[in-house]
Amino acid sequence: MAENNGTTIIVMSGEMDKVMAAFNIAIGAAAMGKETNMFFTFWGLKAIQKGNFTGKSFFGRMMGIMNRGGINRIGPSQFNFWGLGRWMFKQMMKNHHITPLEELRKTAMDLGVKFHPCQMSMEVMEINAEDLIPGVQGVCGVASMLEMADRSRQTLFI
Amino acid sequence: MAENNGTTIIVMSGEMDKVMAAFNIAIGAAAMGKETNMFFTFWGLKAIQKGNFTGKSFFGRMMGIMNRGGINRIGPSQFNFWGLGRWMFKQMMKNHHITPLEELRKTAMDLGVKFHPCQMSMEVMEINAEDLIPGVQGVCGVASMLEMADRSRQTLFI
Amino acid sequence: MAENNGTTIIVMSGEMDKVMAAFNIAIGAAAMGKETNMFFTFWGLKAIQKGNFTGKSFFGRMMGIMNRGGINRIGPSQFNFWGLGRWMFKQMMKNHHITPLEELRKTAMDLGVKFHPCQMSMEVMEINAEDLIPGVQGVCGVASMLEMADRSRQTLFI
Repeated sequence: MAENNGTTIIVMSGEMDKVMAAFNIAIGAAAMGKETNMFFTFWGLKAIQKGNFTGKSFFGRMMGIMNRGGINRIGPSQFNFWGLGRWMFKQMMKNHHITPLEELRKTAMDLGVKFHPCQMSMEVMEINAEDLIPGVQGVCGVASMLEMADRSRQTLFI
Repeated sequence: MAENNGTTIIVMSGEMDKVMAAFNIAIGAAAMGKETNMFFTFWGLKAIQKGNFTGKSFFGRMMGIMNRGGINRIGPSQFNFWGLGRWMFKQMMKNHHITPLEELRKTAMDLGVKFHPCQMSMEVMEINAEDLIPGVQGVCGVASMLEMADRSRQTLFI
Repeated sequence: MAENNGTTIIVMSGEMDKVMAAFNIAIGAAAMGKETNMFFTFWGLKAIQKGNFTGKSFFGRMMGIMNRGGINRIGPSQFNFWGLGRWMFKQMMKNHHITPLEELRKTAMDLGVKFHPCQMSMEVMEINAEDLIPGVQGVCGVASMLEMADRSRQTLFI
């Protein structure tokens, strides 16, 4: 592992597309042998909470993303234009309500990506350690996050 | 102060949660003795404008954030789930309509974080230097911002 | 060109203001002689698709941005406060429906900024190489993007 050549990703967003991008970059970095740390803060904590990526709530979240991106507002043509709706439904069918996010997250962890929950966010949002998926590191403050970032070649805020 | 080990934060977002994250990271970096620069552009300029964080407008902004995050749309259960609504109201009560953001901003400045307003955004949005809080640096272009970034170990776009 | 001193910009957002910021930073970096790479993924691909920045759709997009930023929701005072609406209309008049984004994009390319479309996003969204503007590089994976980032002094996620 090259020194001071890591990748640090601060995940503040809770939207599925942003979280997906974060995991994809983390997987790529870990696969290249880089020290890879993800720091989950605010809405990003959703990505490492138990039971967040499956079942009914997943459906709701997916719809939420589409609304946010404004896709629904501009009618079905845009919807088809991006082909994203179709793709998502295809994926959902294939995966029987298990989203690819869950698999991406597992792959990242298997490759040695470290998941750090932000201490302050945990306190503010009243989330406990037992609400998080297994394998997550202990709570982490901004100072520790910045120490990781100082060992990194790139630090992304997502 | 270690050389070329600074932290540069480009603040383009005007949402309270993003601005809060930006100030928290800046405070952490400055506390570690890192050269810390914040570059406020577009909506981010709101964070260093006079009279933006208090009174009636603060209430409106907070509601705006909740709408954007979609929290209101999915009903009060989610609202409670995050516990954020409760926390915000508690804070508001405690602080008598003075938001923690203002204190974070002051702490950052006290620790030596430099606040740079983006020149182009100021012109486009017709904001004058006297509309900004005291203690802000002179207007700053992209080239100067990139020079700070070149002295930094991490540059975040928030 | 200094070694390992480049700028990498990951453009995931499709909003006009974010894309504008991305091009402005890229132009600044290229003008300083830095190796500058932009990696367009998800909604960011809109910024390098043909026919996206002109005519009727441009109008729609601009309105979409205003809605997203919540400017419309809080009434015309805020709208005027920012002076952005006025500025946009002035620009539109001046440019006869050709947005400044198109010019920024051209300037970036002329200065040697490389535009890389994200391979996975292209596949997922079923976008073909011929849908992209001329001058764009071949499709690019996360690993290649991270190699550029490793030669960069700053990597931004926009």
